[in-house]
Amino acid sequence: MTLRFLTAGESHGPALTAIIEGFPAGLALAATDIDVELQRRQSGYGRGGRMKIEQDQVRITAGMIAGQTTGAPLALWIDNRDWANWKDRQVAPWHVPRPGHADLAGSTKYALEDMRWIAERASARETTTRVAVGAVCKKLLCELGVAIGSYVTEIGAVQADIPAAPLSELWASAEASDVRCPDENAAAAMRRHIDEARAQGDSLGGIFVVAATGLPVGLGSHVHWDRRLDGRIAQAIVSIPAIKGVEIGPAFENARLPGTQVHDALYPAADRGIVRRSNRAGGLEGGITNGEPLVVRAAMKPIPTTISPLESVNTVTGEATTTQYQRSDVCALPAACVVAEAMLAWVLADAFSEKFGGDSMTELLRNARVVQRRSG
Amino acid sequence: MTLRFLTAGESHGPALTAIIEGFPAGLALAATDIDVELQRRQSGYGRGGRMKIEQDQVRITAGMIAGQTTGAPLALWIDNRDWANWKDRQVAPWHVPRPGHADLAGSTKYALEDMRWIAERASARETTTRVAVGAVCKKLLCELGVAIGSYVTEIGAVQADIPAAPLSELWASAEASDVRCPDENAAAAMRRHIDEARAQGDSLGGIFVVAATGLPVGLGSHVHWDRRLDGRIAQAIVSIPAIKGVEIGPAFENARLPGTQVHDALYPAADRGIVRRSNRAGGLEGGITNGEPLVVRAAMKPIPTTISPLESVNTVTGEATTTQYQRSDVCALPAACVVAEAMLAWVLADAFSEKFGGDSMTELLRNARVVQRRSG
Amino acid sequence: MTLRFLTAGESHGPALTAIIEGFPAGLALAATDIDVELQRRQSGYGRGGRMKIEQDQVRITAGMIAGQTTGAPLALWIDNRDWANWKDRQVAPWHVPRPGHADLAGSTKYALEDMRWIAERASARETTTRVAVGAVCKKLLCELGVAIGSYVTEIGAVQADIPAAPLSELWASAEASDVRCPDENAAAAMRRHIDEARAQGDSLGGIFVVAATGLPVGLGSHVHWDRRLDGRIAQAIVSIPAIKGVEIGPAFENARLPGTQVHDALYPAADRGIVRRSNRAGGLEGGITNGEPLVVRAAMKPIPTTISPLESVNTVTGEATTTQYQRSDVCALPAACVVAEAMLAWVLADAFSEKFGGDSMTELLRNARVVQRRSG
Amino acid sequence: MTLRFLTAGESHGPALTAIIEGFPAGLALAATDIDVELQRRQSGYGRGGRMKIEQDQVRITAGMIAGQTTGAPLALWIDNRDWANWKDRQVAPWHVPRPGHADLAGSTKYALEDMRWIAERASARETTTRVAVGAVCKKLLCELGVAIGSYVTEIGAVQADIPAAPLSELWASAEASDVRCPDENAAAAMRRHIDEARAQGDSLGGIFVVAATGLPVGLGSHVHWDRRLDGRIAQAIVSIPAIKGVEIGPAFENARLPGTQVHDALYPAADRGIVRRSNRAGGLEGGITNGEPLVVRAAMKPIPTTISPLESVNTVTGEATTTQYQRSDVCALPAACVVAEAMLAWVLADAFSEKFGGDSMTELLRNARVVQRRSG
Repeated sequence: MTLRFLTAGESHGPALTAIIEGFPAGLALAATDIDVELQRRQSGYGRGGRMKIEQDQVRITAGMIAGQTTGAPLALWIDNRDWANWKDRQVAPWHVPRPGHADLAGSTKYALEDMRWIAERASARETTTRVAVGAVCKKLLCELGVAIGSYVTEIGAVQADIPAAPLSELWASAEASDVRCPDENAAAAMRRHIDEARAQGDSLGGIFVVAATGLPVGLGSHVHWDRRLDGRIAQAIVSIPAIKGVEIGPAFENARLPGTQVHDALYPAADRGIVRRSNRAGGLEGGITNGEPLVVRAAMKPIPTTISPLESVNTVTGEATTTQYQRSDVCALPAACVVAEAMLAWVLADAFSEKFGGDSMTELLRNARVVQRRSG
Repeated sequence: MTLRFLTAGESHGPALTAIIEGFPAGLALAATDIDVELQRRQSGYGRGGRMKIEQDQVRITAGMIAGQTTGAPLALWIDNRDWANWKDRQVAPWHVPRPGHADLAGSTKYALEDMRWIAERASARETTTRVAVGAVCKKLLCELGVAIGSYVTEIGAVQADIPAAPLSELWASAEASDVRCPDENAAAAMRRHIDEARAQGDSLGGIFVVAATGLPVGLGSHVHWDRRLDGRIAQAIVSIPAIKGVEIGPAFENARLPGTQVHDALYPAADRGIVRRSNRAGGLEGGITNGEPLVVRAAMKPIPTTISPLESVNTVTGEATTTQYQRSDVCALPAACVVAEAMLAWVLADAFSEKFGGDSMTELLRNARVVQRRSG
Repeated sequence: MTLRFLTAGESHGPALTAIIEGFPAGLALAATDIDVELQRRQSGYGRGGRMKIEQDQVRITAGMIAGQTTGAPLALWIDNRDWANWKDRQVAPWHVPRPGHADLAGSTKYALEDMRWIAERASARETTTRVAVGAVCKKLLCELGVAIGSYVTEIGAVQADIPAAPLSELWASAEASDVRCPDENAAAAMRRHIDEARAQGDSLGGIFVVAATGLPVGLGSHVHWDRRLDGRIAQAIVSIPAIKGVEIGPAFENARLPGTQVHDALYPAADRGIVRRSNRAGGLEGGITNGEPLVVRAAMKPIPTTISPLESVNTVTGEATTTQYQRSDVCALPAACVVAEAMLAWVLADAFSEKFGGDSMTELLRNARVVQRRSG
Repeated sequence: MTLRFLTAGESHGPALTAIIEGFPAGLALAATDIDVELQRRQSGYGRGGRMKIEQDQVRITAGMIAGQTTGAPLALWIDNRDWANWKDRQVAPWHVPRPGHADLAGSTKYALEDMRWIAERASARETTTRVAVGAVCKKLLCELGVAIGSYVTEIGAVQADIPAAPLSELWASAEASDVRCPDENAAAAMRRHIDEARAQGDSLGGIFVVAATGLPVGLGSHVHWDRRLDGRIAQAIVSIPAIKGVEIGPAFENARLPGTQVHDALYPAADRGIVRRSNRAGGLEGGITNGEPLVVRAAMKPIPTTISPLESVNTVTGEATTTQYQRSDVCALPAACVVAEAMLAWVLADAFSEKFGGDSMTELLRNARVVQRRSG
């Protein structure tokens, strides 16, 4: 048993909650550490009106005393500020499933006629708690020398030309861009593309990279399928709503090349170390971190709520109809990046806990310090 | 607690073993059900010499009486026929990590000098037990009306032109092809490509599709990240050695299209049913099966063992050197397909058990029968 | 993956929180269903002053719409009303571990100097969330025809003479007693014993029975050690603070008798049924419910906080000293009973989910209905 | 994810199998380390004829190279030597459930008419694999300075007078006794009691102690119910067939005493250490090891197979009948002790892995060394 978390909360309910269990004691943590990440999740070009309403803030209601974790479970509480506007509102039941949403499959599974009851939880609002949990993990990872960041490479038909710069620089550029794209020309085209999609009542998806540096060799394992870090990362990323594809390193591209052009050769370095000059493996070999930056690419489908109605069926009458628009974003790539950072942080924090144990930060850092770090 | 399995065994050890726990009683099962799948895993153009040596056969040593499962854990035993040739052989320790393998990261993690000790378990031989476990799951799924199959779409630089045929036809064509490709022209080109790679001392990867039909609506769930079936499938597939990318439906392509061209519209059908005319979602919405065929595409890297040596370092001397060839395949796409079928079968069997419970086949079938099936 | 829950919260923090994941949709549930159990936990002869302060009330902040569960995770929130009195209080650090508490072991484990940080979570206040979670499980079990109750058999040196009445009657008598004891004479003696212990600055433990009726045959399993219901119940009960012993049926007594006097003989009943005339097995054979009432007995140690100081050591100075009294109860048997009911409810709800699956109450009830019920 | 194991195998099947996953690399291990424990399980006064047939021996078929673990899953294989006598035997189906066995509940659960199919797995033969797994854990714990042992205190009506000696001495005396009892007078009476029971066609249970020394402070945790070591040990012990009661320390006795006589006072020791002069807590406070020996007492019911027939029902005809005797022991307390040692070893190895991580013995020992040990 290493780390665990559970989240709860509906899009228009009173609040979102998360409990994190298994964290070491002695980690300095403040609500602002989490709020910064919640703010990042809410920003970005192409967001809908809700982002202005919410401005999420977390309250840590358990697991800390005097600014430090105590080893006890952490409870996170985030008010839905929009709730006051909704709690007494009469909302007509939804009987027209929106293609691309959980509406139809979810209401069938849970035997609920009103699909809004499904949409309340299937909403991307749920990712707020993931970002909060990930922020706590990032704080832990930061103490361990690990940094996590992300950037957008494609939005809809616009493809960026990512410069051959260190990840930290790409992350910094992305952070300064409202489409999280380090290529300024592409960023401008992406904004125009989003504007056009909005004008046409359409929506956009895209592709982004999430990565981590500062990792020790040896997280994850080849010995059993469910210990492999590649699989665990793939699950964590694809579990994000609208993310339907993932690759570790340029996997689809590698699949088309011969082996001699793919595998990252090894060279001697000072002090009997070993270096590589490429990272096509994306930082994982045999499902284990190999000391290179961990690089994950993910594909996000276009947001399934579109102003232009889609063909659907009224499940009560059985008659053909079209979907009714619900408030939504046009493009949420920048937010998805932040959620993906959080999920990657979760998997890595869990992998650290698995390899190094540690009930306190002192113990964890002592156990982890011995291992030679190479990734960066 | 639903289904569980553990596997053990080294590439050149005496045998491979798997234990499956949580299966219902009353499933008719024979060793030949498993042997058929083991044979499928061992066939295919581009395989090395070992495939001829092994011809795997399973022995079910626990969990069955009179040809039926009893609810007790199943134990599977597969002899390594090659072991007789290896057990008394003196093998020099490996100190030159092969790029792309777990050699370096694994030996660092486990503090083992001789990297062969890592390679023994990191070997693709491990997937034999997965195929055996998956064969048992397939037998269960078959009773539930679910079929699973696969086909290759790309090997190295050769891309097939997959006809717009039902999955069952594509699977049948693939089954008849030694590169598991339903496009005969492409298959011929793939064989030539493999021959060339072999001649050049190189290796190839590729891309394949694994899919399932006959699924009920409602496996998986949107309510918590780790219940989502998309994520669980992604983990299972990416956990296969050499598989580094995965998508549910054409996710990377969808990411580049506007929403109105991606989401699968719904239309009324006879008897108040609902049909779709497309399946760009790949059978999952909100992480839940939606009644369409489940379609997963995966990217396999070229086999990291190449006859042409790769640059590396002797970890004992610290000096630059090159890798030494170990017996290997040139291309293992057909085998990877079979392993992916097995892993998909595992995830689906687990999801059935989760949704329907059932200690006996009678009970499971009764619980599952009520649910309306649509996928196909 | 069946049911899960996590809890968080400190004794003097702002609130207690729980998240329950995996519950079916369509269960009617109200905060008052939970408050009733919270009230039961807080009552009983021998409690300290805090019980008057708190009067716990739950707020269900997620997982429900229109009075029904939706399948989404349930979030429970219970304010610590005492918090207002504590949040700005300066509390001197604790450096004198109290024997019998987690103070010393916990502060060593988590590298925390101030043992109050451990006591905040190790407090029995934590069981409030368990009772809340258990109340939700009881509501589910009630729909399935299962009832759970408890009664006290011993407090300190006073042993009750439990009449040979049906469990439901014993439960009703216990409910009417402020020491939860169905034997009125013993109850009077227990109250006197508690008064004396209080007068002497001492504390008391005792022994109680928690039981369930209405169970189907077939929960739990003999096939793997961690599926056995006896072990799972033992863990759940012994995990309650101060509970250090447990038995299924009169196990310690059975151990001293020959087999022919212990094993519950079977007799034919009407309609080809089978009946027993005894239940020395406590409702479980082979770790499986056998259709008899499930009867569990547990031993609670005396509360480790005593007004009479105990010998201890100041961990900062290393010098001998004595413990300082912290507000506490003298005897908490009645509360422990309620917590044990909750934990038993949890294990049983989980076992139902495991055997019958079910995403909605409709589905769960349909799957469970077929099974013949015998326990009562 | 820390340690895992699964077992499989029937009483009269070809073999028993176990897979252990998550063990560190670099542990020296030999089949004889396991065989010694298997032999201990098979000895003892009061065993039936099978023990002479079997003389179990393990074969480690995976997870080791050159006498050391490699971090890969360990596979253990134990032949059922009796199988040759059974495999072709025609056995009439069992339709008369034996009270106290899983026969009736198990066959109902798994919808199997022939109860022998249940008995094959519910047999105590299953504990052989637990002992094998526990032997591997003991080897690991031995490296960490932990010792585990056991002794019998009661068999049926005979109660031993256990001398106030160190655990290691009690264990040594027990090891020399064929009823595992350190009190020689009681041991003689126990043998007579067993002889009488056998003569009367009856069976006996009893009570035993299993304990561990050399433990560090800080295994387990108070922070969440399922991390508490007391609960985890209770589950592990009660999951052993026929064990229906457990206590940590003298819990049922403590329940009858006032707090001031129960809680183990603390005293200053040299070098700023802390000592206790009693161990009524049984080595756990707050669910955490506190540096005192871990002492667990368990109650075993009399073996449910008795030569004297018990009243039962033929489930096919519905008519009253009596049980038919199956080969069995009269008393299996000594064997149960060995199984309990194994289960305790498992829980402790898991708790070490959880607290200290460690992929190799070098890493585990380095991480664990820092913690101050006190138990013994």
